[in-house]
Amino acid sequence: MNTLEWKEGSLWLIDQTRLPLEPSLVECRDIQAVAEAIKALRVRGAPAIGLAAAYGTVLGARSLASAGVTGDRFRSALEAAMAVLGSTRPTAVNLFWALDRMQKILSQEAESQPHAIANALLLEADAMLREDEEINRSMGQYGAELIPDGSKILTHCNTGALAAGSYGTALGVIRSAWEQGKRVHVWVDETRPLLQGARLTAWELQQAGIPFTLITDNMAGYFMARGDVDVAMVGADRIVANGDAANKIGTYGAAVLAHAHDIPFYFVAPTSTVDLATASGDLIPIEQRNPDEVTTFAGKRVAPEGIDAANPAFDVTPARFIAAIITERGVVRPPFADGLAAVACRSARPVEPFSTALAGKESV
Amino acid sequence: MNTLEWKEGSLWLIDQTRLPLEPSLVECRDIQAVAEAIKALRVRGAPAIGLAAAYGTVLGARSLASAGVTGDRFRSALEAAMAVLGSTRPTAVNLFWALDRMQKILSQEAESQPHAIANALLLEADAMLREDEEINRSMGQYGAELIPDGSKILTHCNTGALAAGSYGTALGVIRSAWEQGKRVHVWVDETRPLLQGARLTAWELQQAGIPFTLITDNMAGYFMARGDVDVAMVGADRIVANGDAANKIGTYGAAVLAHAHDIPFYFVAPTSTVDLATASGDLIPIEQRNPDEVTTFAGKRVAPEGIDAANPAFDVTPARFIAAIITERGVVRPPFADGLAAVACRSARPVEPFSTALAGKESV
Repeated sequence: MNTLEWKEGSLWLIDQTRLPLEPSLVECRDIQAVAEAIKALRVRGAPAIGLAAAYGTVLGARSLASAGVTGDRFRSALEAAMAVLGSTRPTAVNLFWALDRMQKILSQEAESQPHAIANALLLEADAMLREDEEINRSMGQYGAELIPDGSKILTHCNTGALAAGSYGTALGVIRSAWEQGKRVHVWVDETRPLLQGARLTAWELQQAGIPFTLITDNMAGYFMARGDVDVAMVGADRIVANGDAANKIGTYGAAVLAHAHDIPFYFVAPTSTVDLATASGDLIPIEQRNPDEVTTFAGKRVAPEGIDAANPAFDVTPARFIAAIITERGVVRPPFADGLAAVACRSARPVEPFSTALAGKESV
Repeated sequence: MNTLEWKEGSLWLIDQTRLPLEPSLVECRDIQAVAEAIKALRVRGAPAIGLAAAYGTVLGARSLASAGVTGDRFRSALEAAMAVLGSTRPTAVNLFWALDRMQKILSQEAESQPHAIANALLLEADAMLREDEEINRSMGQYGAELIPDGSKILTHCNTGALAAGSYGTALGVIRSAWEQGKRVHVWVDETRPLLQGARLTAWELQQAGIPFTLITDNMAGYFMARGDVDVAMVGADRIVANGDAANKIGTYGAAVLAHAHDIPFYFVAPTSTVDLATASGDLIPIEQRNPDEVTTFAGKRVAPEGIDAANPAFDVTPARFIAAIITERGVVRPPFADGLAAVACRSARPVEPFSTALAGKESV
């Protein structure tokens, strides 16, 4: 089973909230179920969220077509449902990128019948899923060149096959270096509060047979100070025009520590994660999630009842702490503005309604 | 109930592994029970460990006296039991400091009968407990001067009344500022893996009515970058001659982040935590605890079975990241060597067998 699969008219997802101990699948039969799955992190990781949103749009179109809704009502109802998808998680720009691609198909197929539109959307979603694997393998090739043989690599959160359609972004680079025969050892940050490192990255590395050690997030400095970290490699949820990069909470702290120890800190992300319409990192909306994720641990309450807790899901690493950004079109080095514009503009992706409508909102 | 109390011939402890949700007490009737309680973190925090070890020695002496053991056999059996206490946790120097004080009484009372020796040891332990409160209140007074009105203060682990006999070290300073009428807001690092922040510091601050917000350790950088942290204040398990300081894992990372944001980072510790016999932080033995503390929580496994995890319990913050060290005899500023020698030598504490015998050992 892959992270997500289209099968007999449903989107099937590995339920990532229940890995690794209770592996199970979720069947999404309508666009609302996909929105719920994204919001609850059953599917997570910027590229995977984008793909889920694409298939969610397909489900929305098919439901409306089956219900006999046509014409302007079809289009406006579908766009309203897509807006719900777009409101699930504000930080990862791939969500809006995917909805933009779906929107483009909608525009191209404006004169078609609902069933034909739904089919065109499905073809596009399938194409995105295929492209995703090519993109990840390409990043893997470029990125592996930055990993010397024998490297000890710190990573944060999960950026493996589970975070994308397959293969992975930062973990895809590590996998690629490993497949080339390089010896590596991975330090896996557990990634509180939701433990994507302990649950998902550890599981993927174990399955791949790549050597690793799980640590709590606050141990990274200890191992850096001992000279036990050579390279740090993470994914991204949004990289903006000047090279500032949003990623899972804790990335910024790891980047500052890496900088203090002269350890190169790399971001690995497809160009669909690059948001040239946002000038700098302070403009990236940061998702604030339910504080219960902090006061409980693996479903069990740990803190006293009735206290205040904060739960920003992402932070922003300023470009000055980033050694390079690895994309499917090559490695971008600082200063990032020109390089990012070059790789991201080649995609000729228009700035479409969802990006602009939602980019400024900070969810609370 | 206090952190630890001597009552009717037993040492009673609040079982800190079960706070805040299942408050319960542990009765230690012999020295072995105290050693177990220290090792299992039922009692933790450098000053509290020292006090527990002192009362543990009393229990050891009373058992031997009741069993009719006398003379050299009494002394050698007690010293063997004290060595077991000394082997429980290698990093916090207060453990060895307390055993040194007990050893000194043993030497002074060399000619006394076992029951008289046990009584003298009990008087000394009681004195240490009384001194502990005075020391903490004195640190509170000195430290509160470093907290401007309206400060947002980051703290890590638990350094409150639970970490000492009463009042606390770093949390004692915050408490003191609050009692002086200063407005403060505390950012409480949850402190993985054992969540002393989420469980203990949150509980103490809630009881004291001091405003705070619980965060995961990896969120500190996010709030520093937003300008939401003015001061950082932590305790210490060992401060060595050049000012390098060992404290709960994650302290070093927080200190590097504070330094990058020009936030003063203070250590608060009694002079019993100062170890002038160790020249620099790289010589401090770091306790390596069971990796299950990282892969499981509250008996529930979170990571896949059969993986490798690391669990260093402490890290060392080099003196260059420390703005000042607050002791009961005043605030020591960099360069620390002379100031630490001045405050710690005034205690005229001899370097005794336990310090030297165990100082070089790194437990695995």
